[in-house]
Amino acid sequence: MNEESNKKRILLRVAYDGTDFHGWQVQPNARSVEGELNKAIQEMTGEEISVIGASRTDAGVHGIGNVAVFDTLSPIPADKFMYALNTKLPEDVSVVESREVAADFHPRHCDSIKTYEYRFYVSEVNNPLKRRNAYRIQYRPDTKLMNEAAAYLVGEHDFKSFCSVHTSAETTVRKLYSAAVREDGDDIVIRVSGAGFLYNMVRIIAGTLLDVGNKKYEPEHIKGILEGCDRTLAGPTLEPQGLTLISIEFPDITN
Amino acid sequence: MNEESNKKRILLRVAYDGTDFHGWQVQPNARSVEGELNKAIQEMTGEEISVIGASRTDAGVHGIGNVAVFDTLSPIPADKFMYALNTKLPEDVSVVESREVAADFHPRHCDSIKTYEYRFYVSEVNNPLKRRNAYRIQYRPDTKLMNEAAAYLVGEHDFKSFCSVHTSAETTVRKLYSAAVREDGDDIVIRVSGAGFLYNMVRIIAGTLLDVGNKKYEPEHIKGILEGCDRTLAGPTLEPQGLTLISIEFPDITN
Repeated sequence: MNEESNKKRILLRVAYDGTDFHGWQVQPNARSVEGELNKAIQEMTGEEISVIGASRTDAGVHGIGNVAVFDTLSPIPADKFMYALNTKLPEDVSVVESREVAADFHPRHCDSIKTYEYRFYVSEVNNPLKRRNAYRIQYRPDTKLMNEAAAYLVGEHDFKSFCSVHTSAETTVRKLYSAAVREDGDDIVIRVSGAGFLYNMVRIIAGTLLDVGNKKYEPEHIKGILEGCDRTLAGPTLEPQGLTLISIEFPDITN
Repeated sequence: MNEESNKKRILLRVAYDGTDFHGWQVQPNARSVEGELNKAIQEMTGEEISVIGASRTDAGVHGIGNVAVFDTLSPIPADKFMYALNTKLPEDVSVVESREVAADFHPRHCDSIKTYEYRFYVSEVNNPLKRRNAYRIQYRPDTKLMNEAAAYLVGEHDFKSFCSVHTSAETTVRKLYSAAVREDGDDIVIRVSGAGFLYNMVRIIAGTLLDVGNKKYEPEHIKGILEGCDRTLAGPTLEPQGLTLISIEFPDITN
């Protein structure tokens, strides 16, 4: 057998607490999730490996099910990578699944369904036990109104109003499969699933739905914000710590 | 008016993420919750103040409602201390209430009801988003059995079996008002309330109830452990990060 025939592509599902990372992507002199994964995989295999990530989450954003792939000649079975890598990774990153995928599988060049949650807690003062994973708001918003507003976002729309002006995306049309607001204990959680998201899109959606919950405008106004195609029409980009990438599903690979 | 008549005793309710502290109590060259409070109060009042804490939680243990008191000559109204101190405290400590109490109120020398929770999450691997505030277990225990076992702990008992051998307590008799196990989403939470707790008592209760949930012994066996008055009969002292001091109520002061 030649080298190529021993090569396999491994998919990792990765969970991380984004608080102490400068985001997913490798950067010089800054701690990144990708950097920690590369280091652990290189240590384990002895190969010069750089993973390909599905979603380059920003600094402070968390992940429960982000995805990374890499190629290796290592004889270690794919499902054992999870255990071996977890012995080398720091406490704020974990591999929650490892499996082999087709050699041409690329997590950014194929259809996927991404699900994000944005979490709020209501408190007059900072809650040290929630501050890392939720965004503090002073007053309880009307979650029924927020949920009504969220429904206007579902479907295929031009989300230009919900996109940071610093985007390099070719088109700002995206398709949302679902958007809903629920109460989780005392917390309030926005959950959105879609085929892809623009830069800062979920954080701007969160800021806009919060404006609705605070009765700055009616739920129906979301239609006008979408139609206006103007970033200044939507609400603020909320802070990253409330945001978690929950899962990425790939319909074309068997799960 | 003389100085004494301007003096008032302030009670603070304090929340903290215990992860990055060497516990509540001031120690040389180590970060403590008490030390951060003293520093913030001194900065604010210009007085040499050391708070008196109600419960000296261990390193890694969290608080939502621990209590501290101090005396001050500051003219700032008692309820404003909360806001002023929160501008000076680090992110992992917050004052959630401040109020005046009687000059002779001492949080350790009066009757109180303390409530603690010990939280578990079930996962084959470390969860970076839960690791700081919950203890990981590999298999889901039987919470119904755990709850049955917890009921045997309620009431006045000699808790010698549930006390670290390093205790200096004069008596190991304590009174538990309630002990119950519930599921909170995917997590499992033990909640206990009592008039006082021995050193490591809640963490040993958690280890023992987990043993019951894992069917090491029957719920009824708790009776034998209590009667034996021997630390080696009970389960292990579980790690601190699962433990949170939820509240301390003082029946003799108006709340």
